[in-house]
Amino acid sequence: MSKKPLNIGMIGYGFMGRAHSNAYCKVGNFFDLEYEPILKAVCARNEEKARDFANNWGYESVETDWRALLARDDIDAVDICTPNNLHREIALAAAEAGKMILCEKPLSMNVEEGEEMCQAVESAGVPNMVWYNYRRVPAVTLAKQLLDEGRLGKIFHYRAAFLQDWTISAELPQGGEALWRLDVDAAGSGVTGDLLAHCIDTALWLNGSIQDVSAMTETFIKERVHSLTGEVQKVGIDDACAFMCRFQNGSLGTFESTRYARGHKALYTFEINGENASIAWDLHDLHRLSYFDHSDDSVVRGWRSVHVTDGDMPYMDKWWVPGLQIGYEHSFVHQVADFIQGISDGKPANPTFRDALETQKVCDAVLKSAADRQWENV
Amino acid sequence: MSKKPLNIGMIGYGFMGRAHSNAYCKVGNFFDLEYEPILKAVCARNEEKARDFANNWGYESVETDWRALLARDDIDAVDICTPNNLHREIALAAAEAGKMILCEKPLSMNVEEGEEMCQAVESAGVPNMVWYNYRRVPAVTLAKQLLDEGRLGKIFHYRAAFLQDWTISAELPQGGEALWRLDVDAAGSGVTGDLLAHCIDTALWLNGSIQDVSAMTETFIKERVHSLTGEVQKVGIDDACAFMCRFQNGSLGTFESTRYARGHKALYTFEINGENASIAWDLHDLHRLSYFDHSDDSVVRGWRSVHVTDGDMPYMDKWWVPGLQIGYEHSFVHQVADFIQGISDGKPANPTFRDALETQKVCDAVLKSAADRQWENV
Amino acid sequence: MSKKPLNIGMIGYGFMGRAHSNAYCKVGNFFDLEYEPILKAVCARNEEKARDFANNWGYESVETDWRALLARDDIDAVDICTPNNLHREIALAAAEAGKMILCEKPLSMNVEEGEEMCQAVESAGVPNMVWYNYRRVPAVTLAKQLLDEGRLGKIFHYRAAFLQDWTISAELPQGGEALWRLDVDAAGSGVTGDLLAHCIDTALWLNGSIQDVSAMTETFIKERVHSLTGEVQKVGIDDACAFMCRFQNGSLGTFESTRYARGHKALYTFEINGENASIAWDLHDLHRLSYFDHSDDSVVRGWRSVHVTDGDMPYMDKWWVPGLQIGYEHSFVHQVADFIQGISDGKPANPTFRDALETQKVCDAVLKSAADRQWENV
Amino acid sequence: MSKKPLNIGMIGYGFMGRAHSNAYCKVGNFFDLEYEPILKAVCARNEEKARDFANNWGYESVETDWRALLARDDIDAVDICTPNNLHREIALAAAEAGKMILCEKPLSMNVEEGEEMCQAVESAGVPNMVWYNYRRVPAVTLAKQLLDEGRLGKIFHYRAAFLQDWTISAELPQGGEALWRLDVDAAGSGVTGDLLAHCIDTALWLNGSIQDVSAMTETFIKERVHSLTGEVQKVGIDDACAFMCRFQNGSLGTFESTRYARGHKALYTFEINGENASIAWDLHDLHRLSYFDHSDDSVVRGWRSVHVTDGDMPYMDKWWVPGLQIGYEHSFVHQVADFIQGISDGKPANPTFRDALETQKVCDAVLKSAADRQWENV
Repeated sequence: MSKKPLNIGMIGYGFMGRAHSNAYCKVGNFFDLEYEPILKAVCARNEEKARDFANNWGYESVETDWRALLARDDIDAVDICTPNNLHREIALAAAEAGKMILCEKPLSMNVEEGEEMCQAVESAGVPNMVWYNYRRVPAVTLAKQLLDEGRLGKIFHYRAAFLQDWTISAELPQGGEALWRLDVDAAGSGVTGDLLAHCIDTALWLNGSIQDVSAMTETFIKERVHSLTGEVQKVGIDDACAFMCRFQNGSLGTFESTRYARGHKALYTFEINGENASIAWDLHDLHRLSYFDHSDDSVVRGWRSVHVTDGDMPYMDKWWVPGLQIGYEHSFVHQVADFIQGISDGKPANPTFRDALETQKVCDAVLKSAADRQWENV
Repeated sequence: MSKKPLNIGMIGYGFMGRAHSNAYCKVGNFFDLEYEPILKAVCARNEEKARDFANNWGYESVETDWRALLARDDIDAVDICTPNNLHREIALAAAEAGKMILCEKPLSMNVEEGEEMCQAVESAGVPNMVWYNYRRVPAVTLAKQLLDEGRLGKIFHYRAAFLQDWTISAELPQGGEALWRLDVDAAGSGVTGDLLAHCIDTALWLNGSIQDVSAMTETFIKERVHSLTGEVQKVGIDDACAFMCRFQNGSLGTFESTRYARGHKALYTFEINGENASIAWDLHDLHRLSYFDHSDDSVVRGWRSVHVTDGDMPYMDKWWVPGLQIGYEHSFVHQVADFIQGISDGKPANPTFRDALETQKVCDAVLKSAADRQWENV
Repeated sequence: MSKKPLNIGMIGYGFMGRAHSNAYCKVGNFFDLEYEPILKAVCARNEEKARDFANNWGYESVETDWRALLARDDIDAVDICTPNNLHREIALAAAEAGKMILCEKPLSMNVEEGEEMCQAVESAGVPNMVWYNYRRVPAVTLAKQLLDEGRLGKIFHYRAAFLQDWTISAELPQGGEALWRLDVDAAGSGVTGDLLAHCIDTALWLNGSIQDVSAMTETFIKERVHSLTGEVQKVGIDDACAFMCRFQNGSLGTFESTRYARGHKALYTFEINGENASIAWDLHDLHRLSYFDHSDDSVVRGWRSVHVTDGDMPYMDKWWVPGLQIGYEHSFVHQVADFIQGISDGKPANPTFRDALETQKVCDAVLKSAADRQWENV
Repeated sequence: MSKKPLNIGMIGYGFMGRAHSNAYCKVGNFFDLEYEPILKAVCARNEEKARDFANNWGYESVETDWRALLARDDIDAVDICTPNNLHREIALAAAEAGKMILCEKPLSMNVEEGEEMCQAVESAGVPNMVWYNYRRVPAVTLAKQLLDEGRLGKIFHYRAAFLQDWTISAELPQGGEALWRLDVDAAGSGVTGDLLAHCIDTALWLNGSIQDVSAMTETFIKERVHSLTGEVQKVGIDDACAFMCRFQNGSLGTFESTRYARGHKALYTFEINGENASIAWDLHDLHRLSYFDHSDDSVVRGWRSVHVTDGDMPYMDKWWVPGLQIGYEHSFVHQVADFIQGISDGKPANPTFRDALETQKVCDAVLKSAADRQWENV
């Protein structure tokens, strides 16, 4: 029986454009869903690059103006993969045009924008989702399941870090297509919005709300050449950010992110310590979950390294056989699958814009705390 | 610019049929090649299942007789994903029909069959390849590169194992579509052809020829119900196999495989010890390579865990960014890419049937040695 | 040639009393020193227990009043292994008596006490040292050596944690001989003085001074039965403490300690990220040092696990052969060896009281910051 | 209450002489035993070195002729730490003199010698023990306990290796005091008696008798300068040895040892796969035991890394607190403790000469099999 089409309009063609396109292409081969994503159009200002991208991924058409894309009747869902500073404007227009919206993270440049975007999609009543993809790494989803089952008991500690090392060289420029994440005007912030936002999203999902934060940030390289102007300009982003917090469940949180941790490429880690059990995870080995269960016999009690590749683990019945790992890109496939299933079920896939706004609130509080050297309520 | 079609006829729709189909679908999105695989037809005796498979993967048509598939003019390449006992007959016919052939491993039930198959494809002059996919795990390809650069110096030791634990239960039946690997008539052997063949293929590629072997095998569960007959029948396969060997370069080899190693799902490991450096790899963390370099300063000398995700590592410029791992399925994508590139270049991608015959020779010697309790020359 | 005696008077017989006694007994077998520790007397209020301890370790005599011990002419050095609230008084008297002093950590209950103690030993001109033993774990000493050689370049980040899980049960009492660490009157603080003090001492040694801190503390179990009174009493210590800081070299620090991290027995970890290299260490595998060197060839660059057991590594020429690890207790042997060598050389072994006072200053700032929810200068 | 003396006469002062002396010195501080070892005399041909050794460890006297040592009435127990070729003669004389005997491993140069030694000690009725110290590493003792409790169920596989890399250089001489292990006349064999003997002893203890073996050996460096003669001489030892075997319980064994595995200092590893659980251990992290329990809930099933430092684990109530590891030397302390307890109980501590003879039988069969390229019964 043939599937119903879900016509996708993609805005942007960068790293995330590739990751999402791959997910749209693959999801139907591995998940049995009512709708099938159709790559209807890709939109970018640079027509030649957009056309190359369309050819590579099989998009049927190209647009160079996102308003033109939104005006098309044959687009059901818009995928916003632009730099952060364009999320708001496009999302508001897409909601007004009645499109479903899948938006890259972070939701917005700040809470005010985010609140506006939430109201827009909720008023329009359109399905909406933000690409916090790490929720759908099977080991992370399994962590959520273990927590929901109550295996950990009362939670005492949550700690997370996202460590990279790719901006240590002072020769690296900022801005432009490749390096907009280093340009505060395009990105809004540095590691806080880019990396910590992931850590915060996962934390809120797994451990509930954050009450207040105390943060510090640092910009190690103060000036960099800007790719667009060719001139040395002040660096406005945070190169590193650390914060402490208290969760509403009484647990303590510590978070840290940097792009100056030599030796770590994309080391997103988290650990949760509960009364009865603990969990730890590491993006560099995303197919494993570490688990400690205090109820084990004492002489054989130890951290278990769970190879999350069995069919009874989240999403893993769709892939290969035990022992054979999947990778980074699969988290996006899972998220598309859940988004589509959500459409069928009439239940939105998380995180919605509203869910993602909570992360934005924490990010804003973190940046404010770092600026004024005070504890800030979220 | 549009690509030339490479029309694929797939025979079989099991686990490997899925893995190969996924590779054909994805390769064009990530590799810039002259030819694009077109999923022209899938062939299986069970028409309904074949049709479901075709629908899922986008095969344009279905055949229920592989001879009919071979007779079609619109098929360029045949992919043999059947149980081992059908490889020979199909391959001989496909060669005669002038088709390119991609054949699942092991090449054949024994050396005699394999030799016949080699002669057939070589007489026909058709591109041919065997799916020893682990050569294209980037960490393994990197190991080959390091060896070719001479970083290890004289090799002293090669050790490999492939450990699983999925047949420990005596309740598990043998035979039939799902469990033909446990049926000696369909599989030819047990872990030797299924698992050790992978270890041997990699070893021959990395460390050269094997001279002689001393082996032992064991069948722990002597009888199992047969899925097709419903009757308890003798188990004819080897549940476990270990062998020692000498390589022509003077190094010593030890190999072991079993499906009775509780705790290991698909733990393919190898380690190579050279005069100057050593290498180790593990399928359960396939995106890492362990490397020890004796020329490091003595106080900071240690095994390095290399996270094989950077753009200057084999195949990794095609995927994501440093720190973000790929998985099992990507090895097949790489192999398709190399096969297609080989067509363009007029140079066959390895391992060819002839390459794979060398592995078959070792497997036969291993099984003979285990039977007669003697050292056997390969 | 016979060695000169160094007559030791030990005050206390608990866990640390054992660790130090073992060190005094062993040091002469493994280190070639001018002085040999002689176990002259042990002092404790409970005479029977003191006598048992003396018999076990070979102390020649027993005292029940530490003032009597200090009055003896045949004691050269006093080792203070009492609860923290007695350090000051004993140290002041010992200095006045002209004894060398080896004092357990933390130095004192607070900075004021510590300052007084420093002045006392400096006025008296007696050799003095505090038992921050982790500096003498060979892997940690090696880290210091690598830093001093400039291998890491500019430092960006320092992070440390000391995680335990032994006080999670609400049934555990506080106070008394076994559990004085949970009694704020005896210990002064909870994890801050007990565990974080170790982390801070190492950090100051490896990475220099700390400028300011922002901290939070928590007491998860608010009341516990007191071992001495048998009554439920308020718990005055911090069960957990986390803080952020800036070092004077411009690097950022994050520190955390708790006794509520299920699964961790005594997991003291630190990591240092520099421009050119990074270092990490873990007390649970104290014989290993992790090292990442960015100058390695890019395709074989990775974290190295250095097994710190070779003869060219700190202290390891004194023990066994490569591959054979030493353990926790050896750090005390090394510290005694360095203390004795310091006497011969007329150069004090670190950390002196003055060195340890710096740690006390950070601890006080941390506790103050947690209390007033402000950044505090050290 | 004072302990009874156990007067020790040590023969030899090399690496093992140090390890044993340390054990005699420490055991009384940590174990509550009826007897206390008294270091009565050390014997070696080189009087000066013997005297230095005696001074260092506190031996009361020195002998230069082991027959003189045996003739002394004030020696209760003789500890044989000589090269292997002297074990037999000394042991026979010691038994005749009615001394208890603690003999370094391997027991003897071959089975014939070993049988003679067993008969001598059994006729004389003297307590006797061989220093296969790894049985007393707490993690290994725990493995034995888990096996005895039946946690693993039917055993399918046993694999062990002992890998080193210290003889790769062709410049290394053979023979003499420091390198007698490379001289076949003093050592009897190479890695087989030195390293594999440890693996075999543990295996027999944990997994029962071995029926038959198929082995291969290699000598990579064929000639070396001899330290005593200064001349280039043929190397008579095995540099590497691997063997396969069948145990009487039906499990398969694989063993390998070498001194040419670049990157491994003293990597003794073993793994046991049972129907219900598996165990693995590694000398480089000797304080950990890996354990996999198939009865765990499937979604949280994984290898556990057990940090063997808790008080309810073998021997660990004698040492420090959870999380604080002990090292290599402690295995000797435990063995002395068990030997002394055995005297009190009238029950010999294992392994006795008779136990160690079983290992010798396997070693002899291994060497014979390697020589004649046949399976050999043990």
